[in-house]
Amino acid sequence: MTSREQHDRMANAIRFLSMDAVEKANSGHPGLPMGCADIATVLFTRFLKYDPKTPHWADRDRFILSAGHGSMLLYSLLHLTGYEDMTIDQIKHFRQLGSKTAGHPEYGHATGIETTTGPLGQGLANSVGFALGERIMNAAFGNDLVDHYTYVLAGDGCLMEGVSQEAIALAGHLKLNKLIVFWDNNNISIDGPVSLSDNTDQVARFQASGWNASHIDGTDPEAIAYAIEAARHSDKPTMIACKTTIGFGAPTKAGTNKAHGSPLGADEIAGARKFFNWDSPPFEIPADILDAWRTAGKAGVKARTDWEGRLAKVDAKLKAEFERRLAGKLPSNFDAVIADYKKKLSTDKPKVATRKSSEMALEVINGAVPETIGGSADLTGSNNTKTSQTKNITPDDYGQRYVHYGIREHGMAAAINGLTLHGGLIAYGGTFMCFSDYARPSMRLASLMGIRSIFVMTHDSIGLGEDGPTHQPVEHLAALRAIPNHNVFRPADAVETAECWQIALESERTPSTLALTRQNLPTVRTEFSAKNLSSQGAYELAAASGEAAVTIFATGSEIEIALGARDLLEKHGHPTRVVSVPCFELFDQQSADYRKKTIGNAPIRMAIEAGIRQGWDHLIGSDGIFIGMTGFGASGTIEQLYPHFGITAEAAAKAAEARLHAK
Amino acid sequence: MTSREQHDRMANAIRFLSMDAVEKANSGHPGLPMGCADIATVLFTRFLKYDPKTPHWADRDRFILSAGHGSMLLYSLLHLTGYEDMTIDQIKHFRQLGSKTAGHPEYGHATGIETTTGPLGQGLANSVGFALGERIMNAAFGNDLVDHYTYVLAGDGCLMEGVSQEAIALAGHLKLNKLIVFWDNNNISIDGPVSLSDNTDQVARFQASGWNASHIDGTDPEAIAYAIEAARHSDKPTMIACKTTIGFGAPTKAGTNKAHGSPLGADEIAGARKFFNWDSPPFEIPADILDAWRTAGKAGVKARTDWEGRLAKVDAKLKAEFERRLAGKLPSNFDAVIADYKKKLSTDKPKVATRKSSEMALEVINGAVPETIGGSADLTGSNNTKTSQTKNITPDDYGQRYVHYGIREHGMAAAINGLTLHGGLIAYGGTFMCFSDYARPSMRLASLMGIRSIFVMTHDSIGLGEDGPTHQPVEHLAALRAIPNHNVFRPADAVETAECWQIALESERTPSTLALTRQNLPTVRTEFSAKNLSSQGAYELAAASGEAAVTIFATGSEIEIALGARDLLEKHGHPTRVVSVPCFELFDQQSADYRKKTIGNAPIRMAIEAGIRQGWDHLIGSDGIFIGMTGFGASGTIEQLYPHFGITAEAAAKAAEARLHAK
Repeated sequence: MTSREQHDRMANAIRFLSMDAVEKANSGHPGLPMGCADIATVLFTRFLKYDPKTPHWADRDRFILSAGHGSMLLYSLLHLTGYEDMTIDQIKHFRQLGSKTAGHPEYGHATGIETTTGPLGQGLANSVGFALGERIMNAAFGNDLVDHYTYVLAGDGCLMEGVSQEAIALAGHLKLNKLIVFWDNNNISIDGPVSLSDNTDQVARFQASGWNASHIDGTDPEAIAYAIEAARHSDKPTMIACKTTIGFGAPTKAGTNKAHGSPLGADEIAGARKFFNWDSPPFEIPADILDAWRTAGKAGVKARTDWEGRLAKVDAKLKAEFERRLAGKLPSNFDAVIADYKKKLSTDKPKVATRKSSEMALEVINGAVPETIGGSADLTGSNNTKTSQTKNITPDDYGQRYVHYGIREHGMAAAINGLTLHGGLIAYGGTFMCFSDYARPSMRLASLMGIRSIFVMTHDSIGLGEDGPTHQPVEHLAALRAIPNHNVFRPADAVETAECWQIALESERTPSTLALTRQNLPTVRTEFSAKNLSSQGAYELAAASGEAAVTIFATGSEIEIALGARDLLEKHGHPTRVVSVPCFELFDQQSADYRKKTIGNAPIRMAIEAGIRQGWDHLIGSDGIFIGMTGFGASGTIEQLYPHFGITAEAAAKAAEARLHAK
Repeated sequence: MTSREQHDRMANAIRFLSMDAVEKANSGHPGLPMGCADIATVLFTRFLKYDPKTPHWADRDRFILSAGHGSMLLYSLLHLTGYEDMTIDQIKHFRQLGSKTAGHPEYGHATGIETTTGPLGQGLANSVGFALGERIMNAAFGNDLVDHYTYVLAGDGCLMEGVSQEAIALAGHLKLNKLIVFWDNNNISIDGPVSLSDNTDQVARFQASGWNASHIDGTDPEAIAYAIEAARHSDKPTMIACKTTIGFGAPTKAGTNKAHGSPLGADEIAGARKFFNWDSPPFEIPADILDAWRTAGKAGVKARTDWEGRLAKVDAKLKAEFERRLAGKLPSNFDAVIADYKKKLSTDKPKVATRKSSEMALEVINGAVPETIGGSADLTGSNNTKTSQTKNITPDDYGQRYVHYGIREHGMAAAINGLTLHGGLIAYGGTFMCFSDYARPSMRLASLMGIRSIFVMTHDSIGLGEDGPTHQPVEHLAALRAIPNHNVFRPADAVETAECWQIALESERTPSTLALTRQNLPTVRTEFSAKNLSSQGAYELAAASGEAAVTIFATGSEIEIALGARDLLEKHGHPTRVVSVPCFELFDQQSADYRKKTIGNAPIRMAIEAGIRQGWDHLIGSDGIFIGMTGFGASGTIEQLYPHFGITAEAAAKAAEARLHAK
């Protein structure tokens, strides 16, 4: 227990590092760290289980700064408690190119940053995945190895974003009682008082979703400690509404939106130094205070070494499994299992939708990889995301492997990121591809963080039929391919689907989206290949009978159409090859030679995809022929829609022949 | 007042039309219409103010089926009450290509469909815009002309989607007491019981956001009527939690997810016919019941003619203004006002960020166009969306023109759609461009509906600086350009910004997104042109000194860089032209001649844009040079970031020269 005076001075160390760093950067957000320094100090000195010298310790408590603009709060804490990579030099280079102290906390930049935050609501929604991941891993490996809390600091923005409702409703439903959220209730948003746009009773709102929630004075260390203690013994998740003052200590700007997102200026900082009786120059922490912080940062060593002792004593097989899973490595027989399955497919040659192929692949994968956690945003039967191994996770049984995320695509994607970031788990979840738009902000963050989140997007074109244009993706393949570091797979049959799943699971630093059909497709990869051909991004699926006059590129359900067009063209004496393109991103990573060879030099290049052209010119040239969509879809049967939009083998062959005759 | 028996039979007419249409289509959602038929019958026979023969009557009550999958409920009501275009033949062709009865209600397909729904939560979130639009128009034109309710039917999915929280919090804050939401509380979602994924106390949740909310028996006509009556006299928005049974009447499927989204099958329908004692064949409504419905559909005639009488009596100028605004036509002097402003700019030559240029243009526009309603998702000072004419709309004063939407990008975009659809208003709202991802589902629906929603997206590149990659759009221009029927503008200076705003306001059937910089840009359009050059999508901004060796295409902030590269190349003896491309979509609509001329035939084509390449090959060819981004941005100053990512005049000139030398 620290004395009040010491608490205050420790909290002030956060405040001054934050305001001085923002001032030096001439950019940033001083208000939150100044307002929330007391909460952070109590948490990091009295409750949080962590060891800055072993920052990746699996059983650490997680602290997630959902209000990521307050990054200097986190950077200050990491520096003060002794994370070695968070030097004072990093603090001095806040927001400068190449430093670990980016404007918003970036996962992978500095240890102790559990997730990338900044886009509001994301950290809070990730935290549901973290807290659920803890419960799942606890069920699998027991209290001795997994038993930690997830703490979140969220701002008004986090709670106004819709994804927060998806997150809190899911957490309440799952009774994630080790999830503890501090709400920085400072009554201020960027435009001014929160009352400009909101009057929600947040405590009542959280209670309505099955949380404990109560108001406290967020500047009173004992009140904070009492609330945390109560939360830790609750059977529900807890939200602590902490009344704070944004920019606390700044003489004229405190309590106003002027303290939010820009440097306070020399006068305000001088005033704050006076107010807090703080006479150290910028970036200097009084020795006794730094010492107190560093001592606090060492408090977790015993817990960590105790834990290591317990780990050393568990059954060797269990220990190996625990360590394999936390290292993110797949079981050693994984590739063999997939190869066997592909061999079987080359005999069976199923004619099924790729959503069904995906389920079949998952049946194999989930049998071989115990750390997969499936789910769907209330489209389980349509997304085919559930297999025999994945039973429902419930508050009474976290030892299962399937999450009914509810009609919450965004919350699902964010929770998948949290499950993934927690460690030890590989999470995937499904919805209709059109609703990837709802999940997009979290999908982007998975890409930015470089993590193995997997998104299953079925009903991937007008092929879904009568639900009509609100449900028919047209621009979504292009829009998803646009996200950097995101593998968008559109497999053509059961074999490619298995291959794409294999790549998704093996891509530790890249999230994946699988675009899957509702309609049945024949097996086109009828010859067994031990090699994962899809991993090349594109490959020749059918050779031309002679020197190719036409190359047709296609993906997914349009491979069948491309092969049909090839048949017609060959019949008319035009040697035609078909290139399957299951993944643009992986094709771009191949050697120039391979790319050149695969694109080929047929005089006519054509692409067929039931989406828009954008992105295809890269392969077919801006003078290539594109058979696809130019606008929104329509409500009708698949048999009506493909001809209606001119996506048929006949139309493709005709377009190629017209061009051949013109040459 | 209808007798209970008549009520039941009228409700059953909805039930049978719905189940029979779904059966005939062999696709669709019978469960909701069967469960909600009582609510709909009470609303449409006893409360809703409408006239099927004058479906666009401005002061009609609005009915929004947020649970759009229950489209047969709406189509049945439109047919039964006598909307002339909703023939029984349309009902028989439910979900067939070319019919007005698409799988989900599509705005513009049939009269009486107020908004396109299907993606869950959207209708509810639109309704906030409808209800706010009513209040704004009421404040402008008085009770005599504008005084109507907005009724919404929402399902569990609508309430689970995060956007619902943004919507209800905003509606509660704005005290939109003429907004009345029925929640189809049927305990069933697609995966099974709602309890699989949710335990939220929805009544408490709505109350926490300032709504009236209570539970009723959603099958008891008098309870429904009583609740509506109470809601109509409330000073808050109202949510009525209606306990219903999905697929009510289907012998084995009622109350289960089997009644949700597929045809019931002959046996269930036969059972329902028995249960309801309904012996009419499919698509036949007993004459007395159809008569009762048609009579109900005529009840609004008097209200409509009374209203027309009042309209005829108001001041001629006010009447003309009301009619102009409802017709969606701009004031007749609009073009002249813009031309004058452009003339002034050609003298002033301001060097300001395009977000500031946008504010300057809006200052002119908002002065000339009284129906604009501005707003921002809590970034007013950053988005520059507020002008001298737009003061805050509050529950005490709807006679203003600015909405503080809160940190609710998605809810804002949906509300903008609602304001636009209401009629009489032109709504725009701002956020950071990176967060267009949050708003994307509603932006897509604006495009699908073909309505004049306007989205102001500032901080449109790495040029925003230190906030870092979470806030820096990279793929967003490409992703937004991917949406069909969506004009994405990226103006290069104050003149182009004014021109793009002019086009946005004049595009009655296409939504617009304006991508605007944080950083200052010089005026490059220094010579006055009465013609709106941006309306061509792309045009030659700077000619080459001789036969062009290089054409540089660029947008927005990269025009300055392109002009710098041109200077360098010209200095080195390479005649170079620069083409400004403020809008891809509009360029694609130009004549082939104009496009060919504008693209030109310089041997080297290059594009410069601080985003990804996707989409640019269309203009520069797949062998063109692209200077832009290949991955995420970074936290740093703008002066650091552009050189870091190689987006400079020097790098561009060097790349062009290397290619020239290679030729």
